[in-house]
Amino acid sequence: MTATRGNVVVTGIARADRTAVDGLAELGVSTVHEAQGRTHLLDPAVRPVYAGARIAGTAVTVSLPPGDNWMVHVAVEQCAEGDVLVIAPTSPTQAAYIGDLLATTLATHGVRGVIVDGGVRDVAELTAMGFPAWSRHVSAFGCIKETLGSVNVGVVCAGQWIEPGDVVVADDDGVVVVPRERAADVLEAARAREQRETRIRERYQNGELGLDMNSMREPLAAKGLVYVQQEPPR
Amino acid sequence: MTATRGNVVVTGIARADRTAVDGLAELGVSTVHEAQGRTHLLDPAVRPVYAGARIAGTAVTVSLPPGDNWMVHVAVEQCAEGDVLVIAPTSPTQAAYIGDLLATTLATHGVRGVIVDGGVRDVAELTAMGFPAWSRHVSAFGCIKETLGSVNVGVVCAGQWIEPGDVVVADDDGVVVVPRERAADVLEAARAREQRETRIRERYQNGELGLDMNSMREPLAAKGLVYVQQEPPR
Amino acid sequence: MTATRGNVVVTGIARADRTAVDGLAELGVSTVHEAQGRTHLLDPAVRPVYAGARIAGTAVTVSLPPGDNWMVHVAVEQCAEGDVLVIAPTSPTQAAYIGDLLATTLATHGVRGVIVDGGVRDVAELTAMGFPAWSRHVSAFGCIKETLGSVNVGVVCAGQWIEPGDVVVADDDGVVVVPRERAADVLEAARAREQRETRIRERYQNGELGLDMNSMREPLAAKGLVYVQQEPPR
Amino acid sequence: MTATRGNVVVTGIARADRTAVDGLAELGVSTVHEAQGRTHLLDPAVRPVYAGARIAGTAVTVSLPPGDNWMVHVAVEQCAEGDVLVIAPTSPTQAAYIGDLLATTLATHGVRGVIVDGGVRDVAELTAMGFPAWSRHVSAFGCIKETLGSVNVGVVCAGQWIEPGDVVVADDDGVVVVPRERAADVLEAARAREQRETRIRERYQNGELGLDMNSMREPLAAKGLVYVQQEPPR
Amino acid sequence: MTATRGNVVVTGIARADRTAVDGLAELGVSTVHEAQGRTHLLDPAVRPVYAGARIAGTAVTVSLPPGDNWMVHVAVEQCAEGDVLVIAPTSPTQAAYIGDLLATTLATHGVRGVIVDGGVRDVAELTAMGFPAWSRHVSAFGCIKETLGSVNVGVVCAGQWIEPGDVVVADDDGVVVVPRERAADVLEAARAREQRETRIRERYQNGELGLDMNSMREPLAAKGLVYVQQEPPR
Amino acid sequence: MTATRGNVVVTGIARADRTAVDGLAELGVSTVHEAQGRTHLLDPAVRPVYAGARIAGTAVTVSLPPGDNWMVHVAVEQCAEGDVLVIAPTSPTQAAYIGDLLATTLATHGVRGVIVDGGVRDVAELTAMGFPAWSRHVSAFGCIKETLGSVNVGVVCAGQWIEPGDVVVADDDGVVVVPRERAADVLEAARAREQRETRIRERYQNGELGLDMNSMREPLAAKGLVYVQQEPPR
Repeated sequence: MTATRGNVVVTGIARADRTAVDGLAELGVSTVHEAQGRTHLLDPAVRPVYAGARIAGTAVTVSLPPGDNWMVHVAVEQCAEGDVLVIAPTSPTQAAYIGDLLATTLATHGVRGVIVDGGVRDVAELTAMGFPAWSRHVSAFGCIKETLGSVNVGVVCAGQWIEPGDVVVADDDGVVVVPRERAADVLEAARAREQRETRIRERYQNGELGLDMNSMREPLAAKGLVYVQQEPPR
Repeated sequence: MTATRGNVVVTGIARADRTAVDGLAELGVSTVHEAQGRTHLLDPAVRPVYAGARIAGTAVTVSLPPGDNWMVHVAVEQCAEGDVLVIAPTSPTQAAYIGDLLATTLATHGVRGVIVDGGVRDVAELTAMGFPAWSRHVSAFGCIKETLGSVNVGVVCAGQWIEPGDVVVADDDGVVVVPRERAADVLEAARAREQRETRIRERYQNGELGLDMNSMREPLAAKGLVYVQQEPPR
Repeated sequence: MTATRGNVVVTGIARADRTAVDGLAELGVSTVHEAQGRTHLLDPAVRPVYAGARIAGTAVTVSLPPGDNWMVHVAVEQCAEGDVLVIAPTSPTQAAYIGDLLATTLATHGVRGVIVDGGVRDVAELTAMGFPAWSRHVSAFGCIKETLGSVNVGVVCAGQWIEPGDVVVADDDGVVVVPRERAADVLEAARAREQRETRIRERYQNGELGLDMNSMREPLAAKGLVYVQQEPPR
Repeated sequence: MTATRGNVVVTGIARADRTAVDGLAELGVSTVHEAQGRTHLLDPAVRPVYAGARIAGTAVTVSLPPGDNWMVHVAVEQCAEGDVLVIAPTSPTQAAYIGDLLATTLATHGVRGVIVDGGVRDVAELTAMGFPAWSRHVSAFGCIKETLGSVNVGVVCAGQWIEPGDVVVADDDGVVVVPRERAADVLEAARAREQRETRIRERYQNGELGLDMNSMREPLAAKGLVYVQQEPPR
Repeated sequence: MTATRGNVVVTGIARADRTAVDGLAELGVSTVHEAQGRTHLLDPAVRPVYAGARIAGTAVTVSLPPGDNWMVHVAVEQCAEGDVLVIAPTSPTQAAYIGDLLATTLATHGVRGVIVDGGVRDVAELTAMGFPAWSRHVSAFGCIKETLGSVNVGVVCAGQWIEPGDVVVADDDGVVVVPRERAADVLEAARAREQRETRIRERYQNGELGLDMNSMREPLAAKGLVYVQQEPPR
Repeated sequence: MTATRGNVVVTGIARADRTAVDGLAELGVSTVHEAQGRTHLLDPAVRPVYAGARIAGTAVTVSLPPGDNWMVHVAVEQCAEGDVLVIAPTSPTQAAYIGDLLATTLATHGVRGVIVDGGVRDVAELTAMGFPAWSRHVSAFGCIKETLGSVNVGVVCAGQWIEPGDVVVADDDGVVVVPRERAADVLEAARAREQRETRIRERYQNGELGLDMNSMREPLAAKGLVYVQQEPPR
């Protein structure tokens, strides 16, 4: 889905600050998602095609018809080092928008990975290349090249609104979007959160309980939680 | 998902022109969807809770947490005659955001129906009231009222971006959105399409074939379609 | 799944009080579910095969293998006027456990309806008979009669634990279970809730807002909700 | 999927005997399915778009790409009075292959209904026309007309192999196929089954138990079924 | 779902015998499942977040609301060396109940893994820690801490009834529960089965056929199986 | 589903040429699928139980009831070096048709892997053995051995028609079937395609764009694609 009329390719898009992008990559999806108030998480049905990748990049977006990837070729030219390609079909489809050939040209242009609200294929080759993809389906069924779409317009991808230049963070937990102009703020909040979590982790490793660390016993009792001894075995 | 930061209620929203809205209601989802270039159709998993309703209205949008419908009460106050309430949880949930009580207050305020990317309940009562709802789930599981959200911000609902004041058209075929400022244009295109379809219907009823009416035989042959006689029965 | 070992038919089960059962039937699934603290609701994927039925009855339970309904014949003999048959396969299956013949013998023995965590068939005939069924699937694929199971043991059906004699309430919103010994208490709570809802409905019809009736404005503001005027049209 | 190479339209197909077809329509899907040994039932996810229709007809088959219904126009010309159109996309899709216009031309040519392993739309209009459709999805998303397919070749539709001229029986329970040359045999077996069921139904209405009518008590005991009295209430 | 009223934490639960638990861990889910008569297998949609783990432990159970993991903190205190935490939301949810922080405190308290009928996150960290989790979803969407539940009551988790102290066995094939008091018996039956399978495996490796080893040829022929020579190639 | 009546085992089947089979194994599913016109791809829901296998073999087919794998034992005897076993239940089921024991006897008879439109189990053992399986489900739930089916008849498996002796190609992208008599032709087409792709890959690695290599700019412009400069940042 696109908010723009007609079929356009928007050039010269503003991109989120590279330093913020790279900082967000280190922190990962779950921390970033929490840091921006539990918003902008893509549908968890979009999964990595292989485990262990963690990336962040600036979105180049593509809105295109189901089963037709002509516009991906148009999008490649708009990609720059540090981008992530976001593919948003206008209707549900399992067709493969990306295979090893398109992955090759994308990687050559500096793209760090792809997010596809549809299918990808050649996953053995993508794994061997180390070119990560997150998708709803793995399917060998290919796309035709018949119908136009748009590049670098706002799109809905897997349930979230993504604008060109926004930050896309992806890892084994899924995919989250950070609006371009919020990248620095979210990075700061995410780093603060991580530092807090590091301290909590240490206290947990020392055997402390969340119940005590967060003073939960009183509010639990106030809400009515009762402790009872189990009756002798049945 | 919302494009806006923090928890806000936007008041005094601009709404699509009422005449256009009412015109779109007559034409229905499939015609309107085609007339705006096959875009802005909500996920077909969002279905009417009873058959036979066809409405159009202006969107009052709600972005809220999974399983929490506190903000719906806030939204009711923002609704006016001719609106459709659009409920967009920030994460997938089956919880019922609307039941017969909320339907009653919404109907009293002139709301024509609700679109819920989650659950509804009391469907026997909604049917008896004639208050239509389109939802992803029917579930008796109720919502809590603990956490804020926003009213009248842009939301993603069932895969489509909806802004407050946009036109929502819903019938047995599903739900489609028409951006506010395009309502008149889409109405005109949809009416033209319907007139064309009326003529086609008559010719079909007279026994004419689409193959002939649309001069398809030549391009089919050119692409290589071959007619063969079936061999004698196996 | 059953908590009992071996294949048994438990006879002479205790049943929930009939007056409570009939009272619960009037109130419906959503009200009963709320009245017992939002518990014991079956998976919403279990749907009525036709709209408009609302029943309550005492559970006769059957635990049986996927695709095998031999034990349903055993269960019929254990049924009495006012019962609801609960069919819980030990593994997911779409096979039809109930068709019009079994419905006929069940109806003859006073059974008010069936809950099937699997398939049913002959839905046109069930509709014509007025014998309601709630199931996960509609499928013509029939069952074999080869393997034992158990009757009137505790079962998990569509995600909930049901014991023989418990109350099963079912309508267009789904299916909820009320433990036998709680029937009277839940009925009382549900009636109180319904009376409250009747008063709320009247106030809603008079145009009052939930925001005011429930004094929500202050806590909403305290949590940080902000009202802003929409900027002039885009 | 089709077993044939290239894109062909097979003309002059042999069709199942009309008398057998009409006989099968009276008996319905569940009885026919049992009568031919529980085979040839389409995936239960293919559902009628409105309740209450029961048809049988001879298959005109279409194999075509996802989201492209060009070949349906070709198929209309091959249809005759008493046919059912069977639409089998080569890959999963929600796109609508049939709407009210195509339904009009199909009905004009004597087609009794359609089976679509994909989407249909204009369901309010189809209901009003009394033109029944069974489909996996209801969706307003339309098809393009770009790519060839084949008409009257063997296809896999919703998990079953269907050849042109086979009998398709469809009702509220789903869809079953009867191979052309077996139509008379299956009709005979289905009628015998129905007569048997009529007698069973009467005995059930008189209160007899399946346990006794089918002498099940002994084999149940032989397999180890045990009856136990419930212990005094918990 | 819980069978207990109110919100309680049951302390001092009886646990299955440790020797039996550890014996069951060696045998794995499929063997244990068969050994107890093909019962108590959790819904196969609950999958390991990484491949290769095989554990058994005694269940500490948590019944809690969708999207709210407050009670997990309460449960940690009830866990002891050799336990498996079983998390059973009262309604379907994708929210993440467990991340790397809670995994850290659980591991510190000797917990061997978690079973979640909902979501988990930080799967890269869980994999690196070697702390196994089985869940229905992977999702970064976090839980709130607002509402009570219960610890160490009977729960339905992924379709099976689990009591505190029961044995939970989990590996790449899924998750199975062994009722506490049956642990020793099931272990014995499972070991006997495994010995039988070892002998069968050797005979298979020597080229023997199951047809001969199990004397299947006669019963197959008696049921009507026919061998035919394929006709000359088509 | 099978096209044949009664329960038969067809012996002495014709198999696709071994050289062609082995050639197809090298090329993989996506290339083969494209080379035969994007047909005969199994439902993408059928996935490998472990990553990294790539096989091709000649199909030995089994049509059998849901939850019953008796016929698999019959099929083993019909298998020869280089075969792939194709298991097609007549109705949807999650039951495990293959575990490590059957895998052992199959591997001993030279079978290269199995395709199951249902469940498999013992996936840790299959992985350790290096015996690949593609299935719709992983489930420990075992099969019974009560009912006949057929071996080496045409079957529908995961949406595609497969005849005995056809080539089955399977890898991380899924499963595709090549009809026996087309194996050599498809191999030739697939090799040609791969050579073409090798050249394209090199040009992509050199930074060339698909837009230029395939002269897409003109047709894109002709269809109305417009390039616009992004407005100054919002």
